[in-house]
Amino acid sequence: MKDIKDMKEKDFVLGIDMGGTNTEFAVVNARGEIIGRDSIPTVGHKDIYDFVSCLKGAVDALLERTGTNGCIRAIGVGAPCANQYTGCIEAATDLPWDSPIPLASLLERAFSLPTSITNDANAAAAGEMAYGHARGLKNFIMITLGTGVGSGIVCDGHLLSGSRGFAGELGHVLVRGNGDRLCGCGRYDCLETYCSAKGIVRTAKEMLGNSDMDSELRSVPEESLSAKTICEAAQRGDVIAKDVYEFTGKILGEACANFAAFTDPEAYIIFGGVAKAGDLIVEPMRQAMERNMLHLYKDRVEILFSSLKDAEAALLGASALAWDMPEI
Amino acid sequence: MKDIKDMKEKDFVLGIDMGGTNTEFAVVNARGEIIGRDSIPTVGHKDIYDFVSCLKGAVDALLERTGTNGCIRAIGVGAPCANQYTGCIEAATDLPWDSPIPLASLLERAFSLPTSITNDANAAAAGEMAYGHARGLKNFIMITLGTGVGSGIVCDGHLLSGSRGFAGELGHVLVRGNGDRLCGCGRYDCLETYCSAKGIVRTAKEMLGNSDMDSELRSVPEESLSAKTICEAAQRGDVIAKDVYEFTGKILGEACANFAAFTDPEAYIIFGGVAKAGDLIVEPMRQAMERNMLHLYKDRVEILFSSLKDAEAALLGASALAWDMPEI
Repeated sequence: MKDIKDMKEKDFVLGIDMGGTNTEFAVVNARGEIIGRDSIPTVGHKDIYDFVSCLKGAVDALLERTGTNGCIRAIGVGAPCANQYTGCIEAATDLPWDSPIPLASLLERAFSLPTSITNDANAAAAGEMAYGHARGLKNFIMITLGTGVGSGIVCDGHLLSGSRGFAGELGHVLVRGNGDRLCGCGRYDCLETYCSAKGIVRTAKEMLGNSDMDSELRSVPEESLSAKTICEAAQRGDVIAKDVYEFTGKILGEACANFAAFTDPEAYIIFGGVAKAGDLIVEPMRQAMERNMLHLYKDRVEILFSSLKDAEAALLGASALAWDMPEI
Repeated sequence: MKDIKDMKEKDFVLGIDMGGTNTEFAVVNARGEIIGRDSIPTVGHKDIYDFVSCLKGAVDALLERTGTNGCIRAIGVGAPCANQYTGCIEAATDLPWDSPIPLASLLERAFSLPTSITNDANAAAAGEMAYGHARGLKNFIMITLGTGVGSGIVCDGHLLSGSRGFAGELGHVLVRGNGDRLCGCGRYDCLETYCSAKGIVRTAKEMLGNSDMDSELRSVPEESLSAKTICEAAQRGDVIAKDVYEFTGKILGEACANFAAFTDPEAYIIFGGVAKAGDLIVEPMRQAMERNMLHLYKDRVEILFSSLKDAEAALLGASALAWDMPEI
């Protein structure tokens, strides 16, 4: 039987960030400090059971090393296509196992700890709310700009889940484009086809094709063209590269003007590789957002960069979920 | 001092529906039955204080008549541009007084009862949740199609409010149009410019102008052309009138496909004068919605008509707010 002392000592949570290649995990305290971390490969296991058992061994070793054995309150997991509502990973194309994977219950069984899973963007929003810029913010939208475009919507202090856990798929809102950008989802002109790293490369290729203007991007081999190389060229003053980010920011800002009408947010918090372009993307985003916004929201919504460190954000975000879980 | 018996007898709420011409009010029980109702003119009072005092007299007479004096738990008010968060009517162009009007506190003072106010669309959503189709639904979006287009968003069982009470202004989401429909808000191509009663008339005028096809609408004097006359012509088989509703439904369905990505709703509930067109608008809406939806939401979201009676909906919606108020 637990006594009060025992309850009080459960001052840590375990955050797990499952990626296509590696699975990282960390013991985190309530201030968002990582007490210890480690990782195992996601690939190379016989099946998901084998993966979970390998993870269990590695986590136990970490708990031993950090002296936090018996002090873990709950587990939070961020994983691609993870659904908080069902506790399953659904239709993940980046993982080596068939979906759906009942990850939450597999981990609960292995660790005897309450476990909550969600997708990367929701985890990022939870991390911001628990430890980052959004501490104290009750209404914000986290937008992750990376390989894809994800989002986590917090309204009235609550991370929206929706009827089946699929709230906040703002990367797949259709935007006002030319109707010719095929998305991975099979439709055309999703926000993601413009504002993801891939979308930015596509915009660059189009702009290079439609213009004769000099650009250092012309000397970059096609397969090496990336959001990062384009960003660096823009920072060196390359006009086409700057135009690419200008256009990307404009599409994002127009979309965010519309998004405001849903949840009347105080802020957008942007995060991910593409967000590293900083003002190159945020300035045109802000201008387009203000230009297209209903008067009720004008000059009221901040655009912030995530305050979580890159190397820690996914882990912290995952761990943040765990604080909301009831203890078993 | 109140005793338990007294508390238990507070089984009624007062709903007030403030319109530009009349203000209706009713005593409502927990089953959504109207025990008694009456109204006073909204216009013709010296100032807002005079209006409140006249309302107080008329309400007291109704309570006397229905034997519910001392049995009212709280007051809920639906009014144009009312903000639940501030308790004020903000920037209402339909009312005879200058905004902002601190209506909630004026009524609390006059009646010594907790008072909650909100706009018409949010009130409709609250009414559906308390007494209508949405009883049991935790994720739905109410869309009111009338003079304007309004919305109330319920996600995870909670009517979204947002940072300043302006969540759910979906009538002012910009849609993919030709960019030439000026909205009352000063921007172009808001959903409302297509799917409100006025938007439908505008579509009809455009379609009549762009075609030589026979239509009974050509014999209707321009000032008599309304969403209702167009609907009746469509019901009689008029091709242009049918095309008008087809187009309107398509724009609405495309917008609703995007809206699903916010809150993963189980249903859209449509309400208001334009919704009376029934399948004329809902069938093309459904088709366009399914065609444009992300696979996650396809075949999962119902379109329902509001189950509240027209003559009672606004009053019931307003009264529904009151059930959530703490007793004083």
